[in-house]
Amino acid sequence: RRLGFDEVIYGASKSVTLLLDILKEYTDKKENVLVTKLQEDKAKVLLETYKASFYDAESGIFILTELETSAEGSPKVGIVSAGSSDIGVANEAFYTLEYMGVKSRVIHDVGVAGLHRLLDKIEVLKTFDILIIVAGFEGALPTVVGGLLPQPIIAVPTSVGYGTAKGGETALHAMLSSCANGITVVNIDNGYGAAMSAFRMVKLLERK
Amino acid sequence: RRLGFDEVIYGASKSVTLLLDILKEYTDKKENVLVTKLQEDKAKVLLETYKASFYDAESGIFILTELETSAEGSPKVGIVSAGSSDIGVANEAFYTLEYMGVKSRVIHDVGVAGLHRLLDKIEVLKTFDILIIVAGFEGALPTVVGGLLPQPIIAVPTSVGYGTAKGGETALHAMLSSCANGITVVNIDNGYGAAMSAFRMVKLLERK
Amino acid sequence: RRLGFDEVIYGASKSVTLLLDILKEYTDKKENVLVTKLQEDKAKVLLETYKASFYDAESGIFILTELETSAEGSPKVGIVSAGSSDIGVANEAFYTLEYMGVKSRVIHDVGVAGLHRLLDKIEVLKTFDILIIVAGFEGALPTVVGGLLPQPIIAVPTSVGYGTAKGGETALHAMLSSCANGITVVNIDNGYGAAMSAFRMVKLLERK
Amino acid sequence: RRLGFDEVIYGASKSVTLLLDILKEYTDKKENVLVTKLQEDKAKVLLETYKASFYDAESGIFILTELETSAEGSPKVGIVSAGSSDIGVANEAFYTLEYMGVKSRVIHDVGVAGLHRLLDKIEVLKTFDILIIVAGFEGALPTVVGGLLPQPIIAVPTSVGYGTAKGGETALHAMLSSCANGITVVNIDNGYGAAMSAFRMVKLLERK
Amino acid sequence: RRLGFDEVIYGASKSVTLLLDILKEYTDKKENVLVTKLQEDKAKVLLETYKASFYDAESGIFILTELETSAEGSPKVGIVSAGSSDIGVANEAFYTLEYMGVKSRVIHDVGVAGLHRLLDKIEVLKTFDILIIVAGFEGALPTVVGGLLPQPIIAVPTSVGYGTAKGGETALHAMLSSCANGITVVNIDNGYGAAMSAFRMVKLLERK
Amino acid sequence: RRLGFDEVIYGASKSVTLLLDILKEYTDKKENVLVTKLQEDKAKVLLETYKASFYDAESGIFILTELETSAEGSPKVGIVSAGSSDIGVANEAFYTLEYMGVKSRVIHDVGVAGLHRLLDKIEVLKTFDILIIVAGFEGALPTVVGGLLPQPIIAVPTSVGYGTAKGGETALHAMLSSCANGITVVNIDNGYGAAMSAFRMVKLLERK
Amino acid sequence: RRLGFDEVIYGASKSVTLLLDILKEYTDKKENVLVTKLQEDKAKVLLETYKASFYDAESGIFILTELETSAEGSPKVGIVSAGSSDIGVANEAFYTLEYMGVKSRVIHDVGVAGLHRLLDKIEVLKTFDILIIVAGFEGALPTVVGGLLPQPIIAVPTSVGYGTAKGGETALHAMLSSCANGITVVNIDNGYGAAMSAFRMVKLLERK
Amino acid sequence: RRLGFDEVIYGASKSVTLLLDILKEYTDKKENVLVTKLQEDKAKVLLETYKASFYDAESGIFILTELETSAEGSPKVGIVSAGSSDIGVANEAFYTLEYMGVKSRVIHDVGVAGLHRLLDKIEVLKTFDILIIVAGFEGALPTVVGGLLPQPIIAVPTSVGYGTAKGGETALHAMLSSCANGITVVNIDNGYGAAMSAFRMVKLLERK
Ligand SMILES: Nc1ncnc2c1ncn2[C@@H]1O[C@H](COP(=O)(O)O)[C@@H](O)[C@H]1O
Ligand SMILES: Nc1ncnc2c1ncn2[C@@H]1O[C@H](COP(=O)(O)O)[C@@H](O)[C@H]1O
Ligand SMILES: Nc1ncnc2c1ncn2[C@@H]1O[C@H](COP(=O)(O)O)[C@@H](O)[C@H]1O
Ligand SMILES: Nc1ncnc2c1ncn2[C@@H]1O[C@H](COP(=O)(O)O)[C@@H](O)[C@H]1O
Ligand SMILES: [Mg+2]
Ligand SMILES: [Mg+2]
Ligand SMILES: [Mg+2]
Ligand SMILES: [Mg+2]
Ligand SMILES: [Mg+2]
Ligand SMILES: [Mg+2]
Ligand SMILES: [Mg+2]
Ligand SMILES: [Mg+2]
Repeated sequence: RRLGFDEVIYGASKSVTLLLDILKEYTDKKENVLVTKLQEDKAKVLLETYKASFYDAESGIFILTELETSAEGSPKVGIVSAGSSDIGVANEAFYTLEYMGVKSRVIHDVGVAGLHRLLDKIEVLKTFDILIIVAGFEGALPTVVGGLLPQPIIAVPTSVGYGTAKGGETALHAMLSSCANGITVVNIDNGYGAAMSAFRMVKLLERK
Repeated sequence: RRLGFDEVIYGASKSVTLLLDILKEYTDKKENVLVTKLQEDKAKVLLETYKASFYDAESGIFILTELETSAEGSPKVGIVSAGSSDIGVANEAFYTLEYMGVKSRVIHDVGVAGLHRLLDKIEVLKTFDILIIVAGFEGALPTVVGGLLPQPIIAVPTSVGYGTAKGGETALHAMLSSCANGITVVNIDNGYGAAMSAFRMVKLLERK
Repeated sequence: RRLGFDEVIYGASKSVTLLLDILKEYTDKKENVLVTKLQEDKAKVLLETYKASFYDAESGIFILTELETSAEGSPKVGIVSAGSSDIGVANEAFYTLEYMGVKSRVIHDVGVAGLHRLLDKIEVLKTFDILIIVAGFEGALPTVVGGLLPQPIIAVPTSVGYGTAKGGETALHAMLSSCANGITVVNIDNGYGAAMSAFRMVKLLERK
Repeated sequence: RRLGFDEVIYGASKSVTLLLDILKEYTDKKENVLVTKLQEDKAKVLLETYKASFYDAESGIFILTELETSAEGSPKVGIVSAGSSDIGVANEAFYTLEYMGVKSRVIHDVGVAGLHRLLDKIEVLKTFDILIIVAGFEGALPTVVGGLLPQPIIAVPTSVGYGTAKGGETALHAMLSSCANGITVVNIDNGYGAAMSAFRMVKLLERK
Repeated sequence: RRLGFDEVIYGASKSVTLLLDILKEYTDKKENVLVTKLQEDKAKVLLETYKASFYDAESGIFILTELETSAEGSPKVGIVSAGSSDIGVANEAFYTLEYMGVKSRVIHDVGVAGLHRLLDKIEVLKTFDILIIVAGFEGALPTVVGGLLPQPIIAVPTSVGYGTAKGGETALHAMLSSCANGITVVNIDNGYGAAMSAFRMVKLLERK
Repeated sequence: RRLGFDEVIYGASKSVTLLLDILKEYTDKKENVLVTKLQEDKAKVLLETYKASFYDAESGIFILTELETSAEGSPKVGIVSAGSSDIGVANEAFYTLEYMGVKSRVIHDVGVAGLHRLLDKIEVLKTFDILIIVAGFEGALPTVVGGLLPQPIIAVPTSVGYGTAKGGETALHAMLSSCANGITVVNIDNGYGAAMSAFRMVKLLERK
Repeated sequence: RRLGFDEVIYGASKSVTLLLDILKEYTDKKENVLVTKLQEDKAKVLLETYKASFYDAESGIFILTELETSAEGSPKVGIVSAGSSDIGVANEAFYTLEYMGVKSRVIHDVGVAGLHRLLDKIEVLKTFDILIIVAGFEGALPTVVGGLLPQPIIAVPTSVGYGTAKGGETALHAMLSSCANGITVVNIDNGYGAAMSAFRMVKLLERK
Repeated sequence: RRLGFDEVIYGASKSVTLLLDILKEYTDKKENVLVTKLQEDKAKVLLETYKASFYDAESGIFILTELETSAEGSPKVGIVSAGSSDIGVANEAFYTLEYMGVKSRVIHDVGVAGLHRLLDKIEVLKTFDILIIVAGFEGALPTVVGGLLPQPIIAVPTSVGYGTAKGGETALHAMLSSCANGITVVNIDNGYGAAMSAFRMVKLLERK
């Protein structure tokens, strides 16, 4: 189980040939590695060569050697999504945390346009050390959660939406401009980065 | 008391000389006229010539002949602001409705980062036919209100905020991308336009 | 026939698997549901499972159980399109209103570059309580209509056009910056939102 | 009376010292010269040195030696403004044409939100060879005129407006995306450029 | 041979079904019609039904009934392209002028990075009444031509280029910001609009 | 000494009158309050009325009742600035943390263009629980620090720079696009938000 | 071996037919030619006709007649890439220099998030006359290199990244806003332009 | 006379107090220092304390101890400006090179709209090792020069212009998108950066 940071490959703009070369290096070193944002057609080719690998099509997460056991204990990180369309980004955060050995839990479809859906979940949300809040369209969910709960909040804008949602820019800007206190933000669709930020906090807690 | 639409002057980019010429025409015709977005220094000059005029410095609203009585009855339009910095835009809507003969009421500082402030006001908000929701920064208020209340909602983004708030663009885009149903939007800082839209609805109700 | 707001699914960024899961929930509850912006290839799969469903390829509207009777009485909402390329967005508004039980009528190809086409339609337009005006390219139609008619006007910019039309941004900004009074605007291509806004007004009229 | 093109100075970003140097060169050569977009405080200094000069504060046009007689005959170019706030840009076109020896006429405040104002002017507009149409906000006027009249049309977007008017960008993009046929466009607030384009056409007519 | 303006169809965002309906109307009326920006796959279907039609794949121009004779006399309009990649837009202008009965000539690949290519063509360019200048990338060609020649110049930015060329925006903005006098501009890739603007000038010359 | 979040006033767009009203409420309640982004001229007026207040001109931080003692113990939060021009934003974070009772330390002028300046400071940086990294221009500092150190990192882009620095947008986008793992970001110039995010983490550590 | 500049074809937006025509001209003249940004499907067709041609799929570089010998001597230009995803752009620079007769060397994957990877390479980098630095995402590499080494540095932003990386715009703006001294920049993904700039410097060195 | 890079202060966003502190450090170390983009009012205060300092108001360049002798020999760098409004940026490059001990020469007002002005200067331009080309508005000058001359070219876009010139963005994008080969670009108004890039080349030449 790895604790360091840097053996992560950005899969989206690498050719299959290049990816096979890189994975070979890891196999030779007998190390595991995480690949992010891997497209399905490329994943299929890699899975043919590496039968022990794991791939999640919703998020594009690929892990060279599937993790044997999932992280244990009560979940430290709560991953909250505003709509069911945000599932891919929530999964990216979830599997990255798994890979880093941190237990988390995903809670779906807690949009603010139906406030009761959020209010119903407040007690559960209080049990996590850290919250990752995933939202597209107008990205209002972190603002409302941030006004209700005291934990560190990492907001992840998603590219879900159309027109003025601008591929996630509006959610990004709304989260950064939030009136709620102390919300931090990562790149659009960057579930991986949110997980790594949570990982930094988890490690800080462990060091104390 | 006027009911038509078009005798309204955009004051921001006209010189004092031009404005004096235009006001003279209305005085000659013995008609009242509304001027919007008038800067304070220019207003001072006009007020010297036209002693019976009204000017509100927060909103920049100028009325050639101050209205004698305010609109009567229970308020039909609720104007809700997210923060006290939005007062100018809320006032622009309020005075425009007054000028058009429609009674409204302003409810300030109902931000979503402190949800209780909104929930405390829900019963009052239910009493209005039409809601004008004014918000800057991330502009999340109309989304939350839209999920709670069934009336027509006119959202007004304001230029309050900095950095990624982009002079109101983020609130505008967030309101347009809202997951809440059937929210309509007017230009940034356009309290006047929101009032005129409400006026169109009030007239429709009167015709029925 | 439903009157509430929230059982509407955004279809564009959900996988077929996820959509089938969601539709199953509604079938189990014996409730109908509206899906918006559903792509044709995904619709085909859903239609194989749900034979009683309705799908309109121009607008991407999918209704789980096709409506038996269309809304009755004289149409309350007029949906006006500037060009025949705007048909998809006009249809999205039309079918949403049908689903909400509100009768409307679509009037096509009333562009302002040939003013007579609009002037010929003015008498018909006067008969509606509410106008939804759909336009791409420079989006000038709501401005001209707004100067001629007193009803509530909901402007819908479309992504029809190229270059400086910027996928609907120019029409959006033009409508928001309109010199005509009291025009409100929804997101680019958001026929659904325009319909829901009209629905809020129709309900207000019914409550009075 | 000059016919060539290039002795025109862009005044906005030159220091008074630099401008005085440049004007001295022209005085020495005994030539006249046009300066555009000159700020009022800088103009005052130049006017003290050059008593025979002309300056129009609305447009920022400065002419080293005031023209003795204005251009003669019936006006060839009609300059139409949508609102009275557009006066500066209309004047820039007018004085540039005067300087180039071309007679023109300005017709103010012909907005499309009050269509009758335009329809009342159609007969006059037919009398010009070339039309320069100046508009801010949503910039819809050239589209409507272009659908009604057959002359060459040069559209000039102005920076009048706020919020989504984006300092003239929206009017610019709307004019460029116009559904009306064969409208050409110049830079925001570029009355000078519109006049020079009209001048090129006038010269072509003279050559024939 | 048609002289009026408005029977032109924007083909890019219409379905084949809709296009077939529209063409049928024109066939029934025994009128010819021009379609712009028609994609190749859709054109193929239309050509199967309408064997007498004309289609140019580079420009996407479709003409319902192929023109029998091309326009006669010496060419009045010179269409100059900066690079051979701009051929589609140049052709759009050319065929539109043909359709309107105006003879023109295309001169390719006259970029400014190799100035001699332009200087070699100056004598030919002098022979046209009107110049349409088509350029992508940085769009500098109209500026250089505008400094050398006195005719009316219609600049057409194209979407050729990558990165900072921004799909034609940079060429558009460069042409609008040109230091050369009196250049007018149309939308990105709008060869059709440039041709119609030239047509307005040609008609003005004929009326004189 | 306060621990909750919400008694913070955004000073930039409130009038002095409004601010005096708000401060009066706090004085009446005998509570302290923090005001952010307060302009110097407005601060002067408030300081005349409230002699016991504190104001820092570089950051615009105003505290109604100056804190008597500063936070004690070894600093938990390191605030690192890339250039001395970033002092205002660093101070905003520092004073906010002071107000919240959290000790921090500012380390100035650790730019990456002179890498030794950073490498010299690495040992000190290791001593903090949490790092706030403040940078303008290209905003590269958080990336380099993030590759060297394991703590939670809150990156704050500043509006320092010109041209392509775009008022802080470039630093913002660079920080969000960072290749370094797990960096989170707040709004441009938002030293306050960074401090509140650190405060959430400090509270989490205290709860454990 | 060629030394002049202009026989280079931009392949991306030309049709195969047009490209075959152009290549034919060069074959007829018995000259070699370089084509840039050629898509793989189009390259396949050209390679069928021109068996002696060279094509690199990563970069899209096509050379009509494959170079017989590669450039000799110690490499003058070092091409440094930040991530292995940047290989295409690095190759474009490499093959262009080969074509121009300049020896260069590519050093891959020297990102700044793992600073040691760069520091390990410093001695090698010192051996080159000129450095071309290729980076996507936040584009921080040229800033760090520029602070460590004195040679001319040509920075090439790439379109690698997602969300706020904005197709290379963020790297471009970060490089242009760099705090490091005297870094120059070329267009996004413009390996060709960087090579030609290096070529200009190499020629200058040869002339001395 | 200094040869290293880093003792340069960005003056624009530092307070006078901070600047005085920094200058004191240099005086104490008996070192000279260059300050860029210093506003005139702040410069006046510094000049009162440091009588031996040099300040150029056009460019905002401040040198702590005025250089005694200017650089000798024939100028190595030619600084070419497109318009006389670009003088400030040209001067910034000139004084930076002086400070670095490199002789250069400024050639003003060589715009491409009057091509002869450029062609008249070609012989002079050939005499420089390196060319810095400064241009605002559409920024076409480097493209034309780049097609005529073989030296390294550093293009500097300036913020001179209005509307679509977008504060220098259009010139920047045009220069980066240039069809001319091997032109490199620095930030808008960055005369300093262009000079430092030229300095890197001059040092390379000296090392050979
Ligand atoms: N989805 C992602 N978002 C942001 N950064 C990533 C992502 N995946 C990998 N990275 C980082 O990008 C770098 C990988 O670059 P590369 O060498 O091109 O694979 C590593 O430093 C990773 O930590
Ligand atoms: N076309 C649409 N435009 C805007 N909002 C929509 C659209 N379709 C559905 N919605 C809203 O978006 C939410 C659907 O989110 P989801 O849970 O992802 O299906 C619901 O609240 C709908 O009211
Ligand atoms: N208002 C204006 N808009 C656009 N171009 C202008 C304007 N005024 C002058 N010019 C042109 O800009 C150039 C002036 O540049 P300069 O040498 O800086 O005065 C000349 O070529 C003029 O033709
Ligand atoms: N390529 C084009 N660019 C701009 N406008 C066009 C183009 N093609 C057709 N039009 C205009 O757009 C309108 C066509 O609208 P539609 O009814 O959707 O076909 C007509 O008024 C045409 O004059
Ligand atoms: Mg949902
Ligand atoms: Mg408040
Ligand atoms: Mg039509
Ligand atoms: Mg008016
Ligand atoms: Mg060519
Ligand atoms: Mg420093
Ligand atoms: Mg890597
Ligand atoms: Mg000049």
